Amino acid sequence: MARSWLDIDPSSDFSLANIPFGIIDTPEDVTRHVGVAIGSYVLDLKELAHRIGANNLLPFGAHSTPGVFETRTLNAFAKLGRSVHRHVRERIQDLLSENTSCPHLLRDNAELREKVLWPQHRVRMFLPMDIGDYTDFYAGYHHAYAVGVMFRGPANALQPNYTHLPVGYHGRASSIVVSGTPVRRPVGQILLDPKAEPKQPTVAPSRKLDIELELGCFITKSNDLGHPVSIDEAEKHVFGYVLLNDWSARDIQTWEYVPLGPFNGKNFTTTISPWVVLADALEPFKTKGIENPTPLQDYLKEKREETVFDIQLEVDLTTPDGNTTTITKTNGKNLMWSFPQMIAHHTLGGCPLRKGDLLGSGTISGPVPEESGSLLELSEGGKRVIQLNGGEGRTFLKDGDTVTFRGFCVGKEGERVGFGECTGRVEGA
Amino acid sequence: MARSWLDIDPSSDFSLANIPFGIIDTPEDVTRHVGVAIGSYVLDLKELAHRIGANNLLPFGAHSTPGVFETRTLNAFAKLGRSVHRHVRERIQDLLSENTSCPHLLRDNAELREKVLWPQHRVRMFLPMDIGDYTDFYAGYHHAYAVGVMFRGPANALQPNYTHLPVGYHGRASSIVVSGTPVRRPVGQILLDPKAEPKQPTVAPSRKLDIELELGCFITKSNDLGHPVSIDEAEKHVFGYVLLNDWSARDIQTWEYVPLGPFNGKNFTTTISPWVVLADALEPFKTKGIENPTPLQDYLKEKREETVFDIQLEVDLTTPDGNTTTITKTNGKNLMWSFPQMIAHHTLGGCPLRKGDLLGSGTISGPVPEESGSLLELSEGGKRVIQLNGGEGRTFLKDGDTVTFRGFCVGKEGERVGFGECTGRVEGA
Repeated sequence: MARSWLDIDPSSDFSLANIPFGIIDTPEDVTRHVGVAIGSYVLDLKELAHRIGANNLLPFGAHSTPGVFETRTLNAFAKLGRSVHRHVRERIQDLLSENTSCPHLLRDNAELREKVLWPQHRVRMFLPMDIGDYTDFYAGYHHAYAVGVMFRGPANALQPNYTHLPVGYHGRASSIVVSGTPVRRPVGQILLDPKAEPKQPTVAPSRKLDIELELGCFITKSNDLGHPVSIDEAEKHVFGYVLLNDWSARDIQTWEYVPLGPFNGKNFTTTISPWVVLADALEPFKTKGIENPTPLQDYLKEKREETVFDIQLEVDLTTPDGNTTTITKTNGKNLMWSFPQMIAHHTLGGCPLRKGDLLGSGTISGPVPEESGSLLELSEGGKRVIQLNGGEGRTFLKDGDTVTFRGFCVGKEGERVGFGECTGRVEGA
Repeated sequence: MARSWLDIDPSSDFSLANIPFGIIDTPEDVTRHVGVAIGSYVLDLKELAHRIGANNLLPFGAHSTPGVFETRTLNAFAKLGRSVHRHVRERIQDLLSENTSCPHLLRDNAELREKVLWPQHRVRMFLPMDIGDYTDFYAGYHHAYAVGVMFRGPANALQPNYTHLPVGYHGRASSIVVSGTPVRRPVGQILLDPKAEPKQPTVAPSRKLDIELELGCFITKSNDLGHPVSIDEAEKHVFGYVLLNDWSARDIQTWEYVPLGPFNGKNFTTTISPWVVLADALEPFKTKGIENPTPLQDYLKEKREETVFDIQLEVDLTTPDGNTTTITKTNGKNLMWSFPQMIAHHTLGGCPLRKGDLLGSGTISGPVPEESGSLLELSEGGKRVIQLNGGEGRTFLKDGDTVTFRGFCVGKEGERVGFGECTGRVEGA
């Protein structure tokens, strides 16, 4: 991997091998527009395109869309397709490389560097995409199994369909927020005494506010109504990836979810990380997922075996007192279904996915309890107290708690391709 | 009710008491824009506003938004709020009345009438709203009960939560289409032998393609993330209503829906009628819904008893041979939950509803089997053949079948306020 002329900390998620895209504003330009993360900096693509000409970033043929870096979301850029994303990413990698082919454009142009490179803390981040529909899958096998054991015992932990198709449900797009947005504890109907008959719900703030550690996948290419995406084509429909916290109110969910699935237990907030890591940037980290013992239907069969990502995932919980504990470490490969499989299944009956649509992986947990992606699992359904640094303990979240997800891949030469943080602080109801 | 100078058939859904809004194009103007239905005509509001001045339609203060009739969806108009909708509807009613206060503007202006009034068959209709999120509820008590009996027997037909909250789930916005759009039979995983162990699904076109007769409700006023809408304010958030066919593939649904709810069994197509009947137009037809024996939580208590609509609903099935049978007649009052209750519940935990969002009522069935809003009920789960005119029978839909919903209210003086048709023809997979 080439080195950058910028000083990039080796522990940064935003190495030259990454180049994730996001929506920013800066002290000089408060209209939302496109930027990329590099080391501890943000490169302002709108300003850069304006100064050096969009033709120095976009491939021939896409020159007619220079405004693509000036828009309030990444949808216009996503729409250009993967070959354009690849071209732009490579152009930016070249401009930022020690041995850039065009040193005069940026490396040796102090005045321009001053205008287009911002320390990250001086830039505000916004929701990167205009999200049409959001679908949340359930591909984290260990999570599905562990939760199933809690509710139905080991013999019936997984429903019979689980290994035949990537189970998923439609989520709520309107409550997806960018990392850093406060999360208000939801009020809802809950059963204080689940065993009492007749059942008598109470309206109260959730007592079982939880997290779900997921990957999110943005769609870059639409399919028309009635036209499924084949598994071999599915990869072309992927724009890139984010970390996703599917905050969940377990007590609201338990009471409401039969027979039609989760609703208010989920739709109060979903947080995503601000930087979209392009599909190309994650490609080198593809690996095998969890083996599926069930013979697959043809429409779900992939040509290669490496279909999920070797992403190191960590979850920190910071108490109101400021004590931080890493409560889980797991890996993105703990999925039984890949995003291409989810896309092929989602569109099998003709459902159109549109540019900007978001798919969630489902909670990612490892095979052992301490690698769990939810407090529900870590606390064994609320029965075990999770010990935190500073002496406090948790089963579920308290007001004032901050939860932060991190995720990164490490390349052969130590270069990191990561997501930065996906964080939210719990506010009282 | 005033009479119109236009010749309006008394059996028309689009009496002067209605004035529903839609998105049209015309032989003279193929850019999508706003129109209203009146009798057998469509009044082109873009052209009308252009000719007589938007100030003759919009209230003072809304004059700065004349472009509101030139947009490709009704979202901009919806955004203006209910008092503006009321003003515009009343202005149009006046212009079209025999005793209009401004006869020179339209009634006596033959040249203008020629430009702005089109026979309905010469106008194309489009999806009326840009729909952010779509939520489908389950408020049709008789449907929920009948289907529950089929799956769980009479003792456990309804889940314990059913009478405590309006059960709902997030639907798919991207596959909502306007009436007249063909409906492709979805391919999906189905169990040909549900009793075999182990379960072995097959990928095939659905053999149990069904309809669901519903009302749809569009949102006109947003609430912010974390800010519930109170039941007393909920009515102000309603823009208007449409008929909705939640096409369902029962065999796909049965296999996939545990534990997270319906997915590919529903997301292949949802059809809505093109004309949005404003909340004000339906207001006179409010009536009592199905009595709920359970004491309600405060956030669901409404001040008045008349909370649902006395809408006569009918479903026609037309075979490929052209034989039409009215397979069900029921009424919109067969709901246990009102749309204001759905809004209050949906936002209880802070979920934002945005302008243009769509809520479905759930399948509306009457108390007796012949008033059922789905073939699943009419055919008793596929066990009884529904006899059609011309000698054919159905349990579920065949390729080439056309299903048409109609719905209308009849006022005190016989004036009809209706939806027109919500129709779709089944195409082979």
